[in-house]
Amino acid sequence: MKTSGKLLYAQSGGVTAVINATAGAVIETCRQHAVTAYAARNGILGALREDLIDTSKEAPAAIRALTHTPGGAFGSCRVKLKSLDEDRTRYARLIDVFRAHDIRWFLYNGGNDSADTALKLSRLGRAMDYDIRCIGVPKTVDNDLAVTDCCPGFGSVAKYTAVSLRECALDVMSMMDTSTRVFVMEVMGRHAGWIAAAAGLAGHSRDDAPHIILFPELAFDPATFLAQVRATVNRAGCCVIAASEGIRYADGRFVADAHAGTDAFGHTQLGGVAPALAGMVRDTLQLKTHWALPDYLQRSARHIASKTDLEQAQAVGRAAVEYALSGANAVMPVIKRRSDAPYRWKIESVPLTKIANREKKLPRSFITRDGYGITAAARRYLAPLIRGEAPPPYGADGLPKYVALKPATVRKRLPAFQAKH
Amino acid sequence: MKTSGKLLYAQSGGVTAVINATAGAVIETCRQHAVTAYAARNGILGALREDLIDTSKEAPAAIRALTHTPGGAFGSCRVKLKSLDEDRTRYARLIDVFRAHDIRWFLYNGGNDSADTALKLSRLGRAMDYDIRCIGVPKTVDNDLAVTDCCPGFGSVAKYTAVSLRECALDVMSMMDTSTRVFVMEVMGRHAGWIAAAAGLAGHSRDDAPHIILFPELAFDPATFLAQVRATVNRAGCCVIAASEGIRYADGRFVADAHAGTDAFGHTQLGGVAPALAGMVRDTLQLKTHWALPDYLQRSARHIASKTDLEQAQAVGRAAVEYALSGANAVMPVIKRRSDAPYRWKIESVPLTKIANREKKLPRSFITRDGYGITAAARRYLAPLIRGEAPPPYGADGLPKYVALKPATVRKRLPAFQAKH
Repeated sequence: MKTSGKLLYAQSGGVTAVINATAGAVIETCRQHAVTAYAARNGILGALREDLIDTSKEAPAAIRALTHTPGGAFGSCRVKLKSLDEDRTRYARLIDVFRAHDIRWFLYNGGNDSADTALKLSRLGRAMDYDIRCIGVPKTVDNDLAVTDCCPGFGSVAKYTAVSLRECALDVMSMMDTSTRVFVMEVMGRHAGWIAAAAGLAGHSRDDAPHIILFPELAFDPATFLAQVRATVNRAGCCVIAASEGIRYADGRFVADAHAGTDAFGHTQLGGVAPALAGMVRDTLQLKTHWALPDYLQRSARHIASKTDLEQAQAVGRAAVEYALSGANAVMPVIKRRSDAPYRWKIESVPLTKIANREKKLPRSFITRDGYGITAAARRYLAPLIRGEAPPPYGADGLPKYVALKPATVRKRLPAFQAKH
Repeated sequence: MKTSGKLLYAQSGGVTAVINATAGAVIETCRQHAVTAYAARNGILGALREDLIDTSKEAPAAIRALTHTPGGAFGSCRVKLKSLDEDRTRYARLIDVFRAHDIRWFLYNGGNDSADTALKLSRLGRAMDYDIRCIGVPKTVDNDLAVTDCCPGFGSVAKYTAVSLRECALDVMSMMDTSTRVFVMEVMGRHAGWIAAAAGLAGHSRDDAPHIILFPELAFDPATFLAQVRATVNRAGCCVIAASEGIRYADGRFVADAHAGTDAFGHTQLGGVAPALAGMVRDTLQLKTHWALPDYLQRSARHIASKTDLEQAQAVGRAAVEYALSGANAVMPVIKRRSDAPYRWKIESVPLTKIANREKKLPRSFITRDGYGITAAARRYLAPLIRGEAPPPYGADGLPKYVALKPATVRKRLPAFQAKH
């Protein structure tokens, strides 16, 4: 086990309600080992720009408060490094920055792209004769990482989605006699229907909302869909729909894109699946529709986070530090499910080669035969992930006490680097 | 004080996170007085159709659970009765139904339209020689009722809005370096900007989100707005906007309507203010935008209800029953603010004539001079209304334990009535 050097932590890609809980666990575990933890400002960009934050300057209370603060406390970014050949300058720059600051452990908190970057860096370190241990730390609301049973971040957006859907369904059912008959809630998940599936937890029987779920894994067929809506309204009085942003027509076009256009002012009409479906239902079936598109609200809703998700987000953070300090390299701590009921899980180490650049879609066995609902197998998988509440503390003003760090920037030691993105 | 007869409670218009708390308080207060409380199914329509529910058949635990269940437990509707002359048949039918079931007290839980209906019914009762006491019970997320300091339902949507805006602002700030620069959250309030103003509670200084609030009380000027967005992004790195669904151009057209159109399939493009503004910003300023439109999610979000709001919703329910049973007629229990800090309030009785068909807009003194923010006076008014948390109980499944009543329908005594709406 190394006894000197620093650890660098960076966040990558879209943030979640609990990614800061992972950050907090990383930093606290470093403190327990008397290891200095740096954080890269705005993810890998900060590492490229040598824009580093010394987290040891933050008060313990501020680090603890990360546990209940959504967003990315150090900033994240959407920057994907390409292959070592195509992007060698940038990879080499990262190693230079690590060397300049004696960074010996790099923790990259993100999805499958980030796992790939961490993997490449670990290899380049060896090639450049610099001892760096690279650990991937799982995070994504999309739940599409390979190997791990689930991804920290997903359980909370799943809970937000199920709770919100149940609430607005009660609203719709109250008014359906004279008002909205069809309600569409659009959820995230451009390539995988995990969040859409989680909406299914809001109901239990066929007549409970959501009456229809639209998954990106299945081609969207307007005629069948509209017939299903009509039948549901005739039977249940209303139809509440959860639709993934990523649904496509059989020809591969995204429904959201196909319905986008230009408004009377010549401006881009930013489509969205929910308004497209609502317009379709209104025009074809002459039913009153409403729709919601919570967008970032769903992935930042720390106020309704899942306790299970929070605990897993912290556990992967702690494990990542332990793995790094004990000399592991190019691995990721993942969640291994030991049993559904009672729900039991543990953390395991998995080589990044098994995770990098792979994508886990919703299995067909999780979707009912008609394509519009979730199966018992899906419920067994999803149910434990939204269990437990972990509300943030609230101030006397009625708002959650989210922390804003006062990041202490580390003095640069290298010439500037043009980190174009 | 009357000693026989029944009380009829009906919900009207859009439901809220706490209207059932009012219903629960009405029913429990009736039980304390040994008065049978009926509820009209789907609001005034149920009264017209003689579709009544005997709430005395519900278990006490179910009635208590109304306190934490959103939506309208007995159903609501959007039906406005016209003048006594134009709608005499329907008013007379209501009196007939009251008479057939010995209903001596009518509590109508809604906004200014409902106050008007309750007022007219109280007059017609006298004209038709039927002793009926009509009480308006305030409810509306829009907070636009006259006389009352605030409306039950508003505090909770205000809290949802402020919390959600603060959360998604943290998300945007984490990513602004390489991703979304401008985020628009659309909020309810077609004619009054109270909910939009509540978004302002999410921040304190000029550089806190929301950076721009768009109120329906002020004409929307695209050029000034876009300049403000550009300046904010230059200064703060991002711009988070809360926009009322009801903003209009100077010529009176709703922004949402002006930007609606037809998509490539010939379907109606259901506009929304948020996508219109986001498209405008993207095309004109070339900045990456995202937008959210929570729609019914905001008014049904019982999971993040304001405790102040909940207490007021219960207080008006209790007071309405007490007023009715002590013989008052054509009044509404309203909330009177006694002081801002500490926040103190009480319930007062006000004649419906002072409330019916009036609308309270956001005062100009609550909006900053530039038109894009809220003043200290607005904060003094709004701040107490979102204070306190009153989360629902959660089940082992991680979802709130919302109750579904088992309504016992009262046997009809009259011929059917064609209650077209």
